[in-house]
Amino acid sequence: MPRWEPSAEDRLREAALALFLERGYENVTVTDITDHAGLTRRTFSRYFADKRDVLFAGSERLPQVISQAVRDADPALGPAEALLAGLAGTAAILAKHVPRSPERRRVVAGSTELRERELGKFAAVTDALTETLRARGATEVGARLLAEVGVAVFRAAFARWTEEPDGADFPVYITEAAAELIGALGPIADQRK
Amino acid sequence: MPRWEPSAEDRLREAALALFLERGYENVTVTDITDHAGLTRRTFSRYFADKRDVLFAGSERLPQVISQAVRDADPALGPAEALLAGLAGTAAILAKHVPRSPERRRVVAGSTELRERELGKFAAVTDALTETLRARGATEVGARLLAEVGVAVFRAAFARWTEEPDGADFPVYITEAAAELIGALGPIADQRK
Repeated sequence: MPRWEPSAEDRLREAALALFLERGYENVTVTDITDHAGLTRRTFSRYFADKRDVLFAGSERLPQVISQAVRDADPALGPAEALLAGLAGTAAILAKHVPRSPERRRVVAGSTELRERELGKFAAVTDALTETLRARGATEVGARLLAEVGVAVFRAAFARWTEEPDGADFPVYITEAAAELIGALGPIADQRK
Repeated sequence: MPRWEPSAEDRLREAALALFLERGYENVTVTDITDHAGLTRRTFSRYFADKRDVLFAGSERLPQVISQAVRDADPALGPAEALLAGLAGTAAILAKHVPRSPERRRVVAGSTELRERELGKFAAVTDALTETLRARGATEVGARLLAEVGVAVFRAAFARWTEEPDGADFPVYITEAAAELIGALGPIADQRK
């Protein structure tokens, strides 16, 4: 069996994560990362704008990817069902583009700057989802609340998915997180008008 | 009837909001604010650390205020019911300490820096609520999801409460937002295990 050769991009990401965890995100430079990976700064620039970008590259596509998946859900589904189907439907893209590693989560959790960036990223997802759910028939306030719930479910599912690299596929975690939420809502969920 | 005399703190806040809306938050200095209010910089320093603090003063108490209200809810209530009761229970404190003005919301919405600060503020509320809901019997994942829902409901209710200065009391908006969310969840809310 041929040995798997990580790409330059993967080597840079792994080097960055290892250094961020070892020394703290604030104390690592781009030169530290390229030295550790045995690659040049020019190669780094081909993939990433700066060291923060190693953690967030591609995330500007997240609002579009998630809301498109909700738009693509079966037109017969109501807004909430389309939301869950759409979140599960991002699985293929996640599996292809997102490293299933718990290290990134730990790095982000350890820095106020990175946590705020992460919050901003998901706020953009909430905005995009609100639009999409409005278009699928939710009320204005309902669409925003549902979008917030969707992002919360996505993040809970994503956290477990990355923490369990040998675990189930992403849609299973979406279903579990949604069930956990409905269970937690308890009797409140029955108070429908 | 005696004319209402605004306090120095209120005059500074009103001057700041007026200037932020007129010139943009980034283009206003503390001196602009004190000049506009006809007060000294020394008086400003008595109430606020800097110009951002005019918008966020007191918000560091929010996680404690909201989670305490949930802790204080009737012990017979389950986590989700205690959450809604607690959110409604913050009404007295809001009415006393929070100006019911839509201007602040508009200023925050217009600046990336302020929006991220606002997100960070509510992330701290989510963390505090997660702890409290765990202590009231929610599962670990359920507690976090419920806390996120609680913050979403609180923010939706708070937005309407401030946008309608002559409207109903805060608990009415909490009930409405929760009903809107349950309505939006639709058939998903029925899929309880």
